[in-house]
Amino acid sequence: MNLTIRKGERKDMPSVLNLINELAVFEKEPDAVNITVDDLIENGFKEIPEFNIFVAETEGIIRGMALFYNRFSTWDGPSLHLEDLIVTEKYRGTGIGKALYDNVLKFGVESGKKRVEWVVLDWNKPAIDFYRSTGATMSEEWNICQMWEKDIKKYLSKK
Amino acid sequence: MNLTIRKGERKDMPSVLNLINELAVFEKEPDAVNITVDDLIENGFKEIPEFNIFVAETEGIIRGMALFYNRFSTWDGPSLHLEDLIVTEKYRGTGIGKALYDNVLKFGVESGKKRVEWVVLDWNKPAIDFYRSTGATMSEEWNICQMWEKDIKKYLSKK
Repeated sequence: MNLTIRKGERKDMPSVLNLINELAVFEKEPDAVNITVDDLIENGFKEIPEFNIFVAETEGIIRGMALFYNRFSTWDGPSLHLEDLIVTEKYRGTGIGKALYDNVLKFGVESGKKRVEWVVLDWNKPAIDFYRSTGATMSEEWNICQMWEKDIKKYLSKK
Repeated sequence: MNLTIRKGERKDMPSVLNLINELAVFEKEPDAVNITVDDLIENGFKEIPEFNIFVAETEGIIRGMALFYNRFSTWDGPSLHLEDLIVTEKYRGTGIGKALYDNVLKFGVESGKKRVEWVVLDWNKPAIDFYRSTGATMSEEWNICQMWEKDIKKYLSKK
């Protein structure tokens, strides 16, 4: 298998959106994806991009991607957040996921980050086992809170 | 109480670091803070800052702060992450935390974010109850994975 990992370009965003949709199905939220190819291009390729992306190709076709961006920890300083690491179903177990993961970790260290972080669903045991085997720590004691635009507007209008 | 919420400045970073240390004690990790005042100034006040910060003042003294930055959701698009919301112990229960929270949510909506998100420790029931009462959703099914620079280097060197 002739695998290439490279920085994603504008032209790759339709394939990237397909992968995002595929992950949403895997995570049992098939209707959760509200963004478009244009949103990805607009946010990822402007002067100060909101994210970076690596794509994995074999035979000139995109089989996986990793999307990540900067965060800042008030305990440790600059960090990198891996938002999505996706390999299309047919190509799972071929090493593409690990190649993407390694490249993101390498990018994090080389750009001076103190840590790389991401989240994993607590039932995704194969992923958890893999991350642990590489030296990642796992914490289960944090809950994620999210508040959507419409709910924020509703809350702020009540005051 | 004459409360002012304003954008944090370089000169506020010593007070901000005191608050960060105070939160680490509250979160039962008193030795976890590895950053310095210089790190905060360097990362928060460069050309493309790694974070934004609001401070809350009464009588010209900083009583609380909120530190936040951009993230990007592959389901919903641009979002704002609230990394820390801290009020010094003596001033908890006075409305300062809510004022900071409201200002961050307002900033998120006004800067076009689709959502604002943050994490909370699962034993911090008063905070969870407050967030829920404002319309935030809570998910417990995600684990947070983190890998530190030294562990990344160790992992990558094994290949």
